[in-house]
Amino acid sequence: LSERLQGALAPVVTPFTADLAPDAARLVRHCRWLVANHTGLAVFGTNSEGNSLSVPEKLALLDALFDAGLSPSRMMPGTGCCALPDTVALTRHAVQNGCAGVLMLPPFYYKGVSDDGLFASYAEVIERVADARLRIYLYHIPQVSQVPIGLALIERLLDRYPGTIAGIKDSSGDFANTRAMLERFAPRGFDVFSGSESYLLATLRGGGAGCISATANVNPGPIARLAREWRSADATGQQAALDRVRAVFQSMPMVPALKAAIAQFTGDAAWVALRPPLVALTSEQRALLAEKLSAIDFAMPGVAGTTATA
Amino acid sequence: LSERLQGALAPVVTPFTADLAPDAARLVRHCRWLVANHTGLAVFGTNSEGNSLSVPEKLALLDALFDAGLSPSRMMPGTGCCALPDTVALTRHAVQNGCAGVLMLPPFYYKGVSDDGLFASYAEVIERVADARLRIYLYHIPQVSQVPIGLALIERLLDRYPGTIAGIKDSSGDFANTRAMLERFAPRGFDVFSGSESYLLATLRGGGAGCISATANVNPGPIARLAREWRSADATGQQAALDRVRAVFQSMPMVPALKAAIAQFTGDAAWVALRPPLVALTSEQRALLAEKLSAIDFAMPGVAGTTATA
Repeated sequence: LSERLQGALAPVVTPFTADLAPDAARLVRHCRWLVANHTGLAVFGTNSEGNSLSVPEKLALLDALFDAGLSPSRMMPGTGCCALPDTVALTRHAVQNGCAGVLMLPPFYYKGVSDDGLFASYAEVIERVADARLRIYLYHIPQVSQVPIGLALIERLLDRYPGTIAGIKDSSGDFANTRAMLERFAPRGFDVFSGSESYLLATLRGGGAGCISATANVNPGPIARLAREWRSADATGQQAALDRVRAVFQSMPMVPALKAAIAQFTGDAAWVALRPPLVALTSEQRALLAEKLSAIDFAMPGVAGTTATA
Repeated sequence: LSERLQGALAPVVTPFTADLAPDAARLVRHCRWLVANHTGLAVFGTNSEGNSLSVPEKLALLDALFDAGLSPSRMMPGTGCCALPDTVALTRHAVQNGCAGVLMLPPFYYKGVSDDGLFASYAEVIERVADARLRIYLYHIPQVSQVPIGLALIERLLDRYPGTIAGIKDSSGDFANTRAMLERFAPRGFDVFSGSESYLLATLRGGGAGCISATANVNPGPIARLAREWRSADATGQQAALDRVRAVFQSMPMVPALKAAIAQFTGDAAWVALRPPLVALTSEQRALLAEKLSAIDFAMPGVAGTTATA
């Protein structure tokens, strides 16, 4: 079995070609830079436009990452779809190729569904994949999915599938909720990841495993450093430095801003493409972003564009 | 070109086998009964558990309907998915096989997206399918999709694609919204369908095209009759009779209640299966439903179970 995932992971942004097809070569290059900066690969998350990709596209991108020699032991692909067979197909492919975990949204089309229905959704996937290596990280992001994963559901899943239900990403932005998960479930080996590095130090101090954060796409080294050094004397200072970067990106539409920053620091303008319904920053927004990043001396050291050696 | 769809359509409920695979034979049988009762086939809608089906499953079910000789001129399959290539694949298959229209959700994972992003989503599908026969019915169901389709977006789409943007299903339950759509867009040949037969008479009197209603799965004949006879003297009485049936189903979880009723009146218990996250009625709920339906003398004349001739 793989070691448990911990520390910093990025919901890796997905580059697109000019005709909006996924761009595997650019994705591989970006993933290599993230791993070199001690950051794991939560591909196909919300900030990856994961649900804007078809199942065949996601399977092909995963294969491109494996073929490029990126280690599945650093991967937690998003596999939760609306339709059971899609979730099963993606989860099975990830597990059979050795991914350390999968990040699983509940089926998110129907709203107000019962815990019985959500339990059955996860249970069906687990029973169909039927692989002892499967490690599921639940994905709680109620402001987007509109289908929350509450404490009672977690408890029920942990009781039934204690080896398989490995943890959660809490993207609620409500640290009281993260704390409740930590207090109730971390003692049972349930790994709680914050959905933002804003709560990284607090999560680690509370017994959590790390963070899976959009901004880890552009600021991976310092986030991963705090995840390693959270017991050190300057942890609070490191957290404050992370917060300054986060604040800039959070002041804009997140996914387009991440892509604009990558385009800027790689010199590779193709990175700004998004699939609808998301839209790129305007040129005014891009200029403002560059100005704000310059004001805090932000950089992406070592990030490589198309002309540099990957 | 096909004639424009009008009158009553059912978001056809999807039967499943014991292992939760789509059951094409039962679906064909139910569709034949609906068409015999003058009701069109809006397969893969919300009440069809359409988003709980994978793209390959939906393509295969459509082919099963075509192969069974059901006329695509009565079909408005739901084709709107989160991922652009999925929406394109389903829409193209529907159009190339002569479906009279498609019912298209906006991409529904991201919330708070801009009209620019939603316009681009629909525009990309239209440009990629690139077929003059394409007739898109927008699908406004904000309480489920959480991605509303507002009047400004409709106007912009109609201005750019006047032949292709054929109408809308308004499932908001807010007749003031339906009326606004009727007043602004019906004069331009935009066909407004109510999402419930509760507003059928009002919609038709306002210049609308009909309704696409869950309850048309179980009460198709009388709904289709009011759609034909809405100018008759007893239209208000017919509407009141429809409302009594609707009220019973609306007092329960809708999709499980529809399936329970079909199971009851066909004598085919397999119909009660749902895919998670939806769950079947309890036996107490089924008994209560049967009692309420009996109290209003409700029946499904001519509906056929597995042992009857289809």
